[in-house]
Amino acid sequence: MNRKKIVSGIRPTGNLHIGNYYGGMKGLINLQEDYHAHFFIADLHSLTTHPNPENLKKNVLQIARHYLAAGLDPERSVFYAQSSIAPEISELHTYLSMVMPLGDLLRCPTFKEKAKKHPDNVNYGLVGYPVLMTADILIHNGDYVPVGDDQLVHLEIARTIVRKFNLLYGETFPLPQPIKENAVRIPSLSGQGKMSKSDSQDSFVSMDDSPTEINKKTKKAYSDPKRVYKNDPGNPTKNGCNVFHLHSYFTDGDRLNAIKKQCLQAEIGCVDCKASLTSSILSIIEPFQERLRGITDHDAEGILLDGKIKAKDSAQQLIANVRKKIGLQMV
Amino acid sequence: MNRKKIVSGIRPTGNLHIGNYYGGMKGLINLQEDYHAHFFIADLHSLTTHPNPENLKKNVLQIARHYLAAGLDPERSVFYAQSSIAPEISELHTYLSMVMPLGDLLRCPTFKEKAKKHPDNVNYGLVGYPVLMTADILIHNGDYVPVGDDQLVHLEIARTIVRKFNLLYGETFPLPQPIKENAVRIPSLSGQGKMSKSDSQDSFVSMDDSPTEINKKTKKAYSDPKRVYKNDPGNPTKNGCNVFHLHSYFTDGDRLNAIKKQCLQAEIGCVDCKASLTSSILSIIEPFQERLRGITDHDAEGILLDGKIKAKDSAQQLIANVRKKIGLQMV
Ligand code: SF4
Ligand code: SF4
Repeated sequence: MNRKKIVSGIRPTGNLHIGNYYGGMKGLINLQEDYHAHFFIADLHSLTTHPNPENLKKNVLQIARHYLAAGLDPERSVFYAQSSIAPEISELHTYLSMVMPLGDLLRCPTFKEKAKKHPDNVNYGLVGYPVLMTADILIHNGDYVPVGDDQLVHLEIARTIVRKFNLLYGETFPLPQPIKENAVRIPSLSGQGKMSKSDSQDSFVSMDDSPTEINKKTKKAYSDPKRVYKNDPGNPTKNGCNVFHLHSYFTDGDRLNAIKKQCLQAEIGCVDCKASLTSSILSIIEPFQERLRGITDHDAEGILLDGKIKAKDSAQQLIANVRKKIGLQMV
Repeated sequence: MNRKKIVSGIRPTGNLHIGNYYGGMKGLINLQEDYHAHFFIADLHSLTTHPNPENLKKNVLQIARHYLAAGLDPERSVFYAQSSIAPEISELHTYLSMVMPLGDLLRCPTFKEKAKKHPDNVNYGLVGYPVLMTADILIHNGDYVPVGDDQLVHLEIARTIVRKFNLLYGETFPLPQPIKENAVRIPSLSGQGKMSKSDSQDSFVSMDDSPTEINKKTKKAYSDPKRVYKNDPGNPTKNGCNVFHLHSYFTDGDRLNAIKKQCLQAEIGCVDCKASLTSSILSIIEPFQERLRGITDHDAEGILLDGKIKAKDSAQQLIANVRKKIGLQMV
């Protein structure tokens, strides 16, 4: 139990695709091996965009089922909905907000970008996002935070808050350290950039897609444009065939070499090559979907409630200590 | 129990003076007759200025004793420290922050003024003050808020938040209404503006002052400068004698008329007139100090803890309802 603590939030966005699965989920979940991980579903953060109340709970359970199916181990890690410890996180946020300079938050590039994108919805909560995120980490005395490049600036804010708080009230929180995410960037089926839910339906493979749907999508996937007829030899790596690029993520080494050779020698047509990509994808997605079917909403709810008990326990201890440091001893 | 609810915060600043007593405390406390009052000591708000942890609790108990001595009735009203319901207020603040436009907060004159005065301490909590204040009100479904002129803008922000929240999540909070404070503005002993703790020690009468101290201060009080000798007739109203002005607040009508007449006819000297002002002030301060001596820190703490139980009960009911409206049903 001497593992270092990490804390990481998971956005409750529905419709995960295979790019998320490889690009984020797997890497995050693997951290549970070496760290005492606290994974929370960030339903409070999602409120900045005013999700429909009906959907919010549904989304939380759905994302929980997906992470459990992907291998998140609730025995090994603490897995909970952020809102389960809303009072504790919010209270800590109140204390942290009193030491955090406003200017740094207004200058934060992620804030400026969002404010530019949605000028009609620049709410106070949006500018405070990094402070609430800091509360998420500090509430468990988190040592490490997995961060993508775009989030390093948020971690810097967390570290500023810790420094200022410790200076004012005495050593209270550890200075959180980044763990760089080794995010694998799965390309889009269209060949344009990385796979993203915000592009057209045909450009990504959803983790919920049926074999027929996947087949339909890989058929339309962008392949070597220089290869028009089956008898033309292709050059999958040189001409940047996107189908081959996708194979390189989902197809094992021997098979991958065979495809390359067959393509170079015009022994395989693009139609068959795409069908083979479908099989490779299905070999990942089908077992995932089977595990997913084995986890009901009710199961997920039970697991999150267990996680809540553990998370609340550590959060309440921390808050008691913070109150003492600040001098709030009435409560 | 059909009285309308009011919610009002009390800043935990020590060293109350007789200007505060007449100018704010009495008026506030009187509201308990007609309303179901919720009075809280705003220890969370005071954190924006980073008070010494050692002093914070002491200040809370001191101000509680002063308000109790001034007549706040904890049986009739709910009297508690804001930090007693820090989790509930902070959680509500999180939800409200998601609907409140940042621009309105940055444009708020009280924020701009503070930011100008303390450019080195413009923390995120400072810009959010009106949102935390709104949470203070809404946490009890407050109908009315006593406000001075300078706080009308904060009430306007509270009303904006209520409108936006109700629009987004359905009718949840009543729109809080202002009760204009009929603040009596006791003049400074120096004759310059109203009595204020931030002026020199001699310009205000502290509620803790001894008779000797009060006597010393009234002796130095500014009187009619045109009246040099006792035999010169004075003109207390026309020449704007500050001592007479102070008499008009603390001395009863018959005695006041007598002083005016005696001054106009040079039958009373300024020294005697000031001694008489001392008596008038003592007739208010001495019974107050006696009541204050009768209330220990321990008494005050017990009363605030009773208040906490009542405040927490109403706060938790409200939070449960808000979570339901937002769709956070995990907790
Ligand atoms: S056979 Fe496969 S690798 Fe070769 S061009 Fe077609 S899709 Fe690309
Ligand atoms: S006697 Fe009293 S009222 Fe008259 S000038 Fe002196 S201080 Fe003022």
